[in-house]
Amino acid sequence: MDLVAGIDIGGTQTKIGLVDKKGVCHEKLFFRTQEFENFDDFLDRIVGGIYELKAKIKSPVNLIGCGIGAPNASSRNGTIENAANLKWKGSVPLLEKLKQRIDLPMRIMNDASAAALGEMLFGNAKGMNDFIVITLGTGLGAGIVANGKLIEGYDGFAGELGHVDMTLGDGRLTGLNVKGGLEAYVSATGLKRTILYMLCKYMDDSRFRDIAYNDLHGEDITKAAEEGDPIALKAFDYTAKTMALALANFTAFTQPEAFFIMGGLVNSGKLIFDPLQTYFEEDLLEVYKGKVKILTSGMEGKTAAICGAAALIWEGWR
Amino acid sequence: MDLVAGIDIGGTQTKIGLVDKKGVCHEKLFFRTQEFENFDDFLDRIVGGIYELKAKIKSPVNLIGCGIGAPNASSRNGTIENAANLKWKGSVPLLEKLKQRIDLPMRIMNDASAAALGEMLFGNAKGMNDFIVITLGTGLGAGIVANGKLIEGYDGFAGELGHVDMTLGDGRLTGLNVKGGLEAYVSATGLKRTILYMLCKYMDDSRFRDIAYNDLHGEDITKAAEEGDPIALKAFDYTAKTMALALANFTAFTQPEAFFIMGGLVNSGKLIFDPLQTYFEEDLLEVYKGKVKILTSGMEGKTAAICGAAALIWEGWR
Repeated sequence: MDLVAGIDIGGTQTKIGLVDKKGVCHEKLFFRTQEFENFDDFLDRIVGGIYELKAKIKSPVNLIGCGIGAPNASSRNGTIENAANLKWKGSVPLLEKLKQRIDLPMRIMNDASAAALGEMLFGNAKGMNDFIVITLGTGLGAGIVANGKLIEGYDGFAGELGHVDMTLGDGRLTGLNVKGGLEAYVSATGLKRTILYMLCKYMDDSRFRDIAYNDLHGEDITKAAEEGDPIALKAFDYTAKTMALALANFTAFTQPEAFFIMGGLVNSGKLIFDPLQTYFEEDLLEVYKGKVKILTSGMEGKTAAICGAAALIWEGWR
Repeated sequence: MDLVAGIDIGGTQTKIGLVDKKGVCHEKLFFRTQEFENFDDFLDRIVGGIYELKAKIKSPVNLIGCGIGAPNASSRNGTIENAANLKWKGSVPLLEKLKQRIDLPMRIMNDASAAALGEMLFGNAKGMNDFIVITLGTGLGAGIVANGKLIEGYDGFAGELGHVDMTLGDGRLTGLNVKGGLEAYVSATGLKRTILYMLCKYMDDSRFRDIAYNDLHGEDITKAAEEGDPIALKAFDYTAKTMALALANFTAFTQPEAFFIMGGLVNSGKLIFDPLQTYFEEDLLEVYKGKVKILTSGMEGKTAAICGAAALIWEGWR
């Protein structure tokens, strides 16, 4: 069986899976990215993981390549550069070092762009020429397709929409020191920061008055909102409102047919999507109203990012 | 001689010219758009203008088509829709009505997208695959090229960057009621509004304390700044600063190789460009620094928009 190793490197988790040409992920494993201070140890863990998964599959496996999605990846240079949400700073020669460990055709791309390719090949964007994938994880990433092609930009760094300023240069700092950058508001981290903002702004009782920032977790905020915690509810509303403004802005850029929202925050379901949909339609220019869909991935949640990474290789085989 | 009628419909002026396949504009005329309450009268003036120009050329002229750049134009429908800076509201069937008056191959597009095509065919963007044209007139328009192709969007309305919110939904209103929309800050109108903001914010003496808003003109603000008027200087600095933030945001979207700035505000020269360049480099993410050029059009100022409109037809002939 021909399989591609799809690797998604996230700020929190790294996911590895073996994916066939239909986008089915046969085996997968996850581990915490932040466990590895040393980049070489991290790569050893990845290669170990690939062999581990291969051994689990009963039938003979033919590994035809390795696709990698990572934040701030340069498809041109095969590097990760100045990633806001990873420990390894500067320019990290991922492709070169990985090739020394396992000799396969390899391709690396910004994780959200990989997700966009995956959505086009395997998911709900089949047949669409203009769409945008937004990944909401530790940060916010974007993969932009226009005229049926992924936009990579002059130098391979297009789609860094987490660092778009929303506040005339006068708002929260992102990990890359962008004042008012979107991911400081809209992301798992952004949601946690908004909890603090709401605790500061309002006097409502809330379970979060007893929890320190470093002990805040997205799932707990979702649970609290579902149970009616007023601060959590306000935080979700603010997140949805800010995200709606951003998506309306992005619509004015490439006028996509649809946005696909992926990543951890999607698990908050209607806490995000219901107000997002309402605010978004309000914020859209007249000419766009009713024309732009907000969708979730057509790929299975836990493996969407893996399949996206694998799509980098499978794309060339079709 | 084969010529194309290039028509640029702006919020203030309409420009018509006859353009050859090398992008040379042989004859041109301008008139005030706002003179015409009635859209049919406006179209009659355009058609009259085309014949007027044709008659001026000594050698025999073969008109091979008519390209039109207009704000909020839909290339798909041949209409102008809900234009913020034109008198005719709703959906205006420009192409259909113009064809009734003069039977030529016609194509209409958002004025800034037309300018982008012109820059690619005749100007300084020859050979570039990723660039963005920003037109600064009564409003702000954008023409975006990625992967060597103009981005039109799902429905022909991409590039409405004048209506991108910069303020978390809490700033100046644009003509389309977008709170914090970019063109409320960065455009000829935005500059005038910023004069009011600075008169309100600071106590400096200024000639503008004796001039009403409706009597303010861009050229006078430029002249005042050149003569050291503190309010005019502050207004230019603020305009450049806001524009820099916007261009840094746009860079994170498609990572263009260059921005081309066109339109009336370009005549303010270094009052805009010097601070713009400085702020822009400061605002760019690390991965983009030093890689993105800010340029002016390679086409002659007065005729750039005309040649852009003509490029809509000439593009098909190459």
